[in-house]
Amino acid sequence: MKAELITIGDEILIGQIVDTNSAWMGQQLNLLGIEVYQVTSVHDNHDHIMKALAEAEENADLVLITGGLGPTKDDITKHTLCEYFGTELVFHPEVLEHVRSLLSSRNVNINQLNTDQALLPASCTVLHNSAGTAAGMWFERNNTIFVSMPGVPFEMEAIMTEEVFPRLTKLGITQSIVHKTVLTIGLPESMLAEKIEQWESALPDFIKLAYLPSPMMVRLRLSGYGTDQSELEAEIDRQVKKLLGIIPENVFGFDNDNLGLVIGRLLKESSRTLAVAESCTGGKIAHFITSNPGSSAYFKGGVVAYSNEIKNKLLDVPSEIIESFGAVSQQVAEAMAKGAQKVLNSDYSVATTGIAGPDGGTEEKPVGTVWIAVAGPSGIISKKYIFRHNRERNIIRTTHTALNMLRTLILTENS
Amino acid sequence: MKAELITIGDEILIGQIVDTNSAWMGQQLNLLGIEVYQVTSVHDNHDHIMKALAEAEENADLVLITGGLGPTKDDITKHTLCEYFGTELVFHPEVLEHVRSLLSSRNVNINQLNTDQALLPASCTVLHNSAGTAAGMWFERNNTIFVSMPGVPFEMEAIMTEEVFPRLTKLGITQSIVHKTVLTIGLPESMLAEKIEQWESALPDFIKLAYLPSPMMVRLRLSGYGTDQSELEAEIDRQVKKLLGIIPENVFGFDNDNLGLVIGRLLKESSRTLAVAESCTGGKIAHFITSNPGSSAYFKGGVVAYSNEIKNKLLDVPSEIIESFGAVSQQVAEAMAKGAQKVLNSDYSVATTGIAGPDGGTEEKPVGTVWIAVAGPSGIISKKYIFRHNRERNIIRTTHTALNMLRTLILTENS
Repeated sequence: MKAELITIGDEILIGQIVDTNSAWMGQQLNLLGIEVYQVTSVHDNHDHIMKALAEAEENADLVLITGGLGPTKDDITKHTLCEYFGTELVFHPEVLEHVRSLLSSRNVNINQLNTDQALLPASCTVLHNSAGTAAGMWFERNNTIFVSMPGVPFEMEAIMTEEVFPRLTKLGITQSIVHKTVLTIGLPESMLAEKIEQWESALPDFIKLAYLPSPMMVRLRLSGYGTDQSELEAEIDRQVKKLLGIIPENVFGFDNDNLGLVIGRLLKESSRTLAVAESCTGGKIAHFITSNPGSSAYFKGGVVAYSNEIKNKLLDVPSEIIESFGAVSQQVAEAMAKGAQKVLNSDYSVATTGIAGPDGGTEEKPVGTVWIAVAGPSGIISKKYIFRHNRERNIIRTTHTALNMLRTLILTENS
Repeated sequence: MKAELITIGDEILIGQIVDTNSAWMGQQLNLLGIEVYQVTSVHDNHDHIMKALAEAEENADLVLITGGLGPTKDDITKHTLCEYFGTELVFHPEVLEHVRSLLSSRNVNINQLNTDQALLPASCTVLHNSAGTAAGMWFERNNTIFVSMPGVPFEMEAIMTEEVFPRLTKLGITQSIVHKTVLTIGLPESMLAEKIEQWESALPDFIKLAYLPSPMMVRLRLSGYGTDQSELEAEIDRQVKKLLGIIPENVFGFDNDNLGLVIGRLLKESSRTLAVAESCTGGKIAHFITSNPGSSAYFKGGVVAYSNEIKNKLLDVPSEIIESFGAVSQQVAEAMAKGAQKVLNSDYSVATTGIAGPDGGTEEKPVGTVWIAVAGPSGIISKKYIFRHNRERNIIRTTHTALNMLRTLILTENS
């Protein structure tokens, strides 16, 4: 089964919002064995939407449409769908009732714009939107299914999960797609490709490999296509095992893992705790760690020590060290890491101090200069980096690098 | 001038990465007065790419293509472009020289895959990629320009900024588009629409209004189309002034402002400083503040107090209060805010304590229960919220709500 996604909204095309809906839908459909053939983003424009619908109907068995269903005047999707399917808007009292009760639970008075949301095309099946006021719509024509949903991500996700997937599952899909993603760190793309070249060439025809590079990391995605789900899974597992033999130290996780989750697992296994002392990363490392559910089991907390005064007062970094070596120095990074361990009473700690930019650089310490220290029960490791990027990327690279240093330290301590 | 974007890569269609390139390009092109007509995401597949190129050539004067140019085997864009334009790959020694020097600066050895990146279509103008090894390609046919770039965001951005925009500017564009976005907080979309209905109906024909809702906020985007840039800007400014008269308290900024920037400006104007004490937001507020350049001028730092021990030890929250009222309580939130002010020696502070989920909820304090306190030179304000979302959204809503409480407090103190 082939799907096509149409996202409607001027705000996407002028780049005011990033289209995260397509990625979410692509992931979910894949799990169901439905291949997304194309994503098309179009304007809030009658002719453009009509054209996109006609093209999608040609290519796909399932057309998922998001956006343009809000209560306001710039949203025209509903009227255009009526024209496309040769039907008209009719009043749905149960939808009005839902809009009314949802708004009242939010202490919002219902108005005419909300009331109009109960007007929906006569020929569609109305899909309940438990998370908002704009209902979804399910149309069928010839052998193609069309589903229209609001563009607000959590409303679209609610309709997909509660209304669309159960209906699709009933249709009985046979073709299976199995994905497995291997997360690597520490090897640039071309070096990685060279290391695994022989393994890659020997992959069976029905398994495709993709390289997905991002700062510090390359994700390797294996995709297997066929009819027998469990056979595909077994073959992919065999190939992943071979790969692990070639680059054991560079693989830090699989699929939706992230460094925070992996570190969390390592800490829980050994009943150890973590604290952070952040200067240039400004809370990013703590946020990265605490984004993961259950992190309170191993994360004690942290200090964001943006000023020297705080480094001294809260992390016990001696003022003399800051004065002698400067805030961005090995000595201060190590003192921050030790201070965090002691003050926050943790087994491990991570500390960062650097110049994220765009200001604050000097000839000796240019923007991007960072010292990272990680401390564990039996020692401390520190390292200097110079990241030559903008503020945002310098912060991200420092975060990833620091967390990978921590991961390596925990593995060493545990071995 | 009309542009169309084609993003190539299976990883986009299976949702493994979110396509942020299109949003960036859409924004930048708009500033140049070039309208993006459509974004199309297609597979790493020869036929599919050929079809997308042909369709884009029909619609657009400018076709920007990203993805599929890496050194690895799954990247087929270059070969497909050769076929589309009836040309062949030729060796470019200057590109090889660049690849070699870039890799050597990263201490990476050059290999055959890298060397092949110097093979580029004979009929294109090669665009220098200062940020990576995959060069950009500029083709012209009939009246359409095609530009192919790598999909890695910072490499694409480097080629666009350094090579594509200067060339496009030389082409002399006449049609102007002026956007202005008004950022509102505290009114749901339908209530906002009702409040500004008369103003909206009276907008001139050449100005379009769009509502862009996100958690806690609605952005209102005004877009004016015409030939006289300064006249458009003046008319949009007039309309924005009228709007400010209708909803003065709900507008917190414009265009690329964010709450952190706005708060930073308010603090700098009054020479005041800020500290944070975070439990459930786990560093997100500190990260939000420090993402903005220059934040070290007003941000002292913060404590991520995930455990009660840290709340007591670092923020001076009395243990008796935690024991009597629980960690998620008005008393603890206020004590954290006061503690942060005192310990971190700041004028203002923000404190959060709550249950982000998915675990940790009770009947009395369900997941999503949050206490927020903001303290300033002359007082403290605290408020309880119950956000009924997942962990990620609960953290974001708490962050935005806390920062908006802080903004309001600073405005009150300054008035």
